[in-house]
Amino acid sequence: MLEPPRDVLTFSSSSSQQVDPYLPASSSYLSSSTKPPIYITLTFATSLDSNLALAPGTQTALSGPQSKSMTHYLRSKHDAILIGVGTAIADDPSLNCRIAGVGGYGGEGLLGQPRPVVLDPKGRWDFSEDNKVFRLAKAGRGKAPLVISTEDIGERKRKALENVGGRNIVLSSDTVSSISAIPWSSILTMLQNEGIKSVMIEGGGAVINNLLHPRNISLVNTVIVTIVPTWLGKGGVLVCPDERVEGDTKLPVGRLEDVKWVPLGEDVVLCGRPMS
Amino acid sequence: MLEPPRDVLTFSSSSSQQVDPYLPASSSYLSSSTKPPIYITLTFATSLDSNLALAPGTQTALSGPQSKSMTHYLRSKHDAILIGVGTAIADDPSLNCRIAGVGGYGGEGLLGQPRPVVLDPKGRWDFSEDNKVFRLAKAGRGKAPLVISTEDIGERKRKALENVGGRNIVLSSDTVSSISAIPWSSILTMLQNEGIKSVMIEGGGAVINNLLHPRNISLVNTVIVTIVPTWLGKGGVLVCPDERVEGDTKLPVGRLEDVKWVPLGEDVVLCGRPMS
Ligand SMILES: NC(=O)c1ccc[n+]([C@@H]2O[C@H](COP(=O)([O-])OP(=O)(O)OC[C@H]3O[C@@H](n4cnc5c(N)ncnc54)[C@H](OP(=O)(O)O)[C@@H]3O)[C@@H](O)[C@H]2O)c1
Ligand SMILES: NC(=O)c1ccc[n+]([C@@H]2O[C@H](COP(=O)([O-])OP(=O)(O)OC[C@H]3O[C@@H](n4cnc5c(N)ncnc54)[C@H](OP(=O)(O)O)[C@@H]3O)[C@@H](O)[C@H]2O)c1
Repeated sequence: MLEPPRDVLTFSSSSSQQVDPYLPASSSYLSSSTKPPIYITLTFATSLDSNLALAPGTQTALSGPQSKSMTHYLRSKHDAILIGVGTAIADDPSLNCRIAGVGGYGGEGLLGQPRPVVLDPKGRWDFSEDNKVFRLAKAGRGKAPLVISTEDIGERKRKALENVGGRNIVLSSDTVSSISAIPWSSILTMLQNEGIKSVMIEGGGAVINNLLHPRNISLVNTVIVTIVPTWLGKGGVLVCPDERVEGDTKLPVGRLEDVKWVPLGEDVVLCGRPMS
Repeated sequence: MLEPPRDVLTFSSSSSQQVDPYLPASSSYLSSSTKPPIYITLTFATSLDSNLALAPGTQTALSGPQSKSMTHYLRSKHDAILIGVGTAIADDPSLNCRIAGVGGYGGEGLLGQPRPVVLDPKGRWDFSEDNKVFRLAKAGRGKAPLVISTEDIGERKRKALENVGGRNIVLSSDTVSSISAIPWSSILTMLQNEGIKSVMIEGGGAVINNLLHPRNISLVNTVIVTIVPTWLGKGGVLVCPDERVEGDTKLPVGRLEDVKWVPLGEDVVLCGRPMS
């Protein structure tokens, strides 16, 4: 067992009780059978003006310490974390869980560590073993990533992945869409084949907006949004899904039900389920 | 004294205790003297994607019943309500207070009714005595409006205003700006001349974004935002101030401090003060 490193986090049990009913393990989920077999939690942090970051391609620290700990707590409750390639490139994210007691942070092996999954259709992410997620995997503090593409990512990157226990999985793309979006149905089938029963989708903008679209939102079991009391201003990475028009009428794109607002430090955490 | 009409609203004292510290009458405000002599509360309701309405020129019902009652409670605590002409045209708003006990809703005269103020530089609002705010003024259920312009609004409209006890006030415009924005300094001086000590600025998009700009935000004492758990999608009326760049660096436009999040029905109400 590794000594827990200094960046280990804790999340109070009074706060975790508030979000637990929205997580895959909750009994209320297990008793419902209308949702697909993979539990999807969509989660992200925005400013008041619904921005994820100050500018495309850059990372902006938004969440306060308590909501950041919550994100790590949520990670410990899911089999996988999924992000788009835009986030992989901009953030060089760790994609591991640093809550005290999980594997690498006081716990055995990789217990409670989610599997990182990166959607990178065209193999744009130019990673090496120096990227954070690779270093954490080598150090036994996180699982090795799966990189999902629609074309070959090349020998060098495949080797780098395999050296830490990761893999490249090639799926066919959705040619209808303007971005080379990988269809969610293929992504979910792939995750199921990997034995993944719950996934936390963390961003970024393109992935979130695509998933909030009425065509996809019914796949999502739970939405957890941290809202931070700041305005980032124009030119940021906006969460704002494509408009929904029926006949001549513009309609709201979606709404949450079974809503709970949990103030956490200066931020608020919104938990809810998409209305069908 | 008028019988209270059927659309009278109530707001629980447990909820009002949560927002009271942010209102003009609170002792914590009175003891601070760094702010200008008019207390400004900026308040509006947005979707999760920071939209005020589904499309420009249209009104979208966003707030649930409890946060709507809160808005009316807030109105009873301010001398005036101010909106831009875009909102006057799109919404034909009532701009009165319907909380039980104020004038016209169980109370004497016009006690607790705020003065409606409409910023209409070019006289674009083509109102008549049939508009809601005029009918309410005639019925003794709201005060008559002040229409602030930078040019003459014409004989017919001036008469319509004066018939209900309202007035047109002509100020000079801020020619630097792309919209014919009336400078806040002139607006505040005008309000002071009218004996107004507190104003609730309710919208719409252009007015809010203009006030959130770092040049203006220090005028604001309190911000109260209702957030509704829905996404309206692209093409709406977005609250997102102009970006702030210093040197080569993009910075957040602003942040709130002394923050409180008050869940109210399905919505949350954020109260805070702009950081200086
Ligand atoms: N505040 C937060 O919580 C948070 C969280 C995550 C990220 N972020 C920020 O978000 C920004 C990155 O967002 P982004 O919009 O640039 O990129 P992104 O959403 O991370 O990645 C989008 C890319 O993923 C690929 N993709 C594959 N399947 C897709 C599908 N079904 N739907 C959508 N995309 C799919 C496409 O790649 P191709 O273009 O190659 O086809 C697409 O362009 C960064 O600034 C990051 O810091 C913030
Ligand atoms: N959800 C909510 O809480 C809420 C509240 C209010 C309104 N709304 C919605 O907001 C929309 C209307 O917003 P909008 O952006 O079109 O119009 P707006 O902000 O109501 O009015 C903007 C206009 O006011 C004038 N103006 C004068 N001084 C100004 C100043 N200092 N700063 C900014 N504007 C100034 C300008 O008129 P000129 O163009 O003539 O120069 C400007 O174009 C409607 O859809 C309405 O339903 C929603």
